[in-house]
Amino acid sequence: MKRSEFESWTRAELDAVESAMQAWVPDNTPAGLGLAMRYGVLDGGKRVRPLLVLAACQAVGGLREAAMRAACAVELIHAYSLVHDDMPCMDNDVLRRGKPTVHVQFGEAQAMLAGDAMQALAFEVLTPTAADSQAFADGEGVPPTLQARLCGLLARAAGHAGMAGGQAIDLASIGKPLDEHTLRDMHHRKTGALLQASVLMGAATGTTSDAEWDALTDYGDALGLAFQVVDDILDVTQASETLGKTAGKDLDNNKPTYVTVLGLSAARRHAAELRDKAQVALRRSGLANAACLSLLADKVVERDN
Amino acid sequence: MKRSEFESWTRAELDAVESAMQAWVPDNTPAGLGLAMRYGVLDGGKRVRPLLVLAACQAVGGLREAAMRAACAVELIHAYSLVHDDMPCMDNDVLRRGKPTVHVQFGEAQAMLAGDAMQALAFEVLTPTAADSQAFADGEGVPPTLQARLCGLLARAAGHAGMAGGQAIDLASIGKPLDEHTLRDMHHRKTGALLQASVLMGAATGTTSDAEWDALTDYGDALGLAFQVVDDILDVTQASETLGKTAGKDLDNNKPTYVTVLGLSAARRHAAELRDKAQVALRRSGLANAACLSLLADKVVERDN
Repeated sequence: MKRSEFESWTRAELDAVESAMQAWVPDNTPAGLGLAMRYGVLDGGKRVRPLLVLAACQAVGGLREAAMRAACAVELIHAYSLVHDDMPCMDNDVLRRGKPTVHVQFGEAQAMLAGDAMQALAFEVLTPTAADSQAFADGEGVPPTLQARLCGLLARAAGHAGMAGGQAIDLASIGKPLDEHTLRDMHHRKTGALLQASVLMGAATGTTSDAEWDALTDYGDALGLAFQVVDDILDVTQASETLGKTAGKDLDNNKPTYVTVLGLSAARRHAAELRDKAQVALRRSGLANAACLSLLADKVVERDN
Repeated sequence: MKRSEFESWTRAELDAVESAMQAWVPDNTPAGLGLAMRYGVLDGGKRVRPLLVLAACQAVGGLREAAMRAACAVELIHAYSLVHDDMPCMDNDVLRRGKPTVHVQFGEAQAMLAGDAMQALAFEVLTPTAADSQAFADGEGVPPTLQARLCGLLARAAGHAGMAGGQAIDLASIGKPLDEHTLRDMHHRKTGALLQASVLMGAATGTTSDAEWDALTDYGDALGLAFQVVDDILDVTQASETLGKTAGKDLDNNKPTYVTVLGLSAARRHAAELRDKAQVALRRSGLANAACLSLLADKVVERDN
């Protein structure tokens, strides 16, 4: 696949995700809750997770509609975690996706509720029912068995053993020296679990052999860690305008990162190694239509925001 | 059913719920997250929602294992909402279920994460998979179609159209006069949606006719509102020791309640009317084994905490 083809694919998929989000994130709730939810998840972010879901669906020839729901659900989980993470009792950040954070714009209580409702909405999007309103009516085609599997994968990646657990380690590690092993465990949960789940949710929308599933599991694992190593690098090398969020905040918060533990150049080498590991796993899968997954692994490491 | 039989049933079911919770809420997470989750949900509360799930399962002859998972899942959602609701940016409360609130005990950041992880855990509990650890291994018997249906019912009751939406209205109503219609809408979402979902999740574990389902929907609706009217009454008539939470806090927070809108004696009459409405709906269902559901409706109105 040519780079230009990948770029058109990316643009088209980002548009499709944005349209689906526009339809599924409510704007008519009382008391402005929907507005805060929409502010937190629409029009922003790199959408790496939705692209991984859709690329994995393509690789296995999966069910498009289920993949679009999974793509939006995983982004809703990611976005809610940012809304909560930015709050004063956590990272106390005021800039996200180039805009004031949700609690700055809507107040802390509404930000907490919006995050809570975004998590619930992720599971609503995954379980379309005939009784639902028009927005969900087109979703009757997702087999209930697949709905249950997607809910299970997402819940485990989001919860205590995944993202929320990683954030708890993060919280407890402020100001403490961490060895590389603990740092890796933290990031494996905090960022890696949801990125890996994105790949596996996409794969679950089709049929895979055990060997293909295992290879995609390894791909998602390596890519998830690579993503976090690059995040740590960008936090010290890029300006806030490029990132769309506050740069240098890990250092300011006295948080251990791959850069503080390994140093900048070793962190860069590590990111490249992890990308290679992801590519090796992908080739091992033997999947014919994995070009977008491969180019996404490159993009994760080469990005500047 | 004799009152004493109902009381033994209640005690046995509460023990069963507590054992399941002990097994499913993790105690071995890093950084103490599991401890905060367990503190927030174990050993406390009236467990009205789990009892409704199990009584509805009994009424329709449903699948016991699915009902136990649904009972724990709905209590996890309820408990997480209390953890977040008690935080300083919301109600800023220090006493809950007779103990210091989670944020007082573990700090605000950990309380927010624990609530987030409890919501995710609810959906983990509903989607047992063969790949899961031992704690979930006994759950392979829940059909995936039922898993998906339970996830859908719970997510909608918890999210923007249900509990979280009701809390947003609650937040926006502080210090404002509300008419009875708006107050009813707020409570219908904030408390009613999850109580009604408890009944319907229990009913979904078995087979029901449309007429039975509709009757149980009406029962859940009336019971949910009755519960909230009684909560508002107890907030002004009971001491904090009896409630296990801070009494009089709606008045202190200048929140409109059924008591401030209707007056105490009209609120009491309204609670009794709603209980009667629930009983009428239940008789209309024609379900033979609905004695526990009937006695639960009485208990909700007659309780003193």
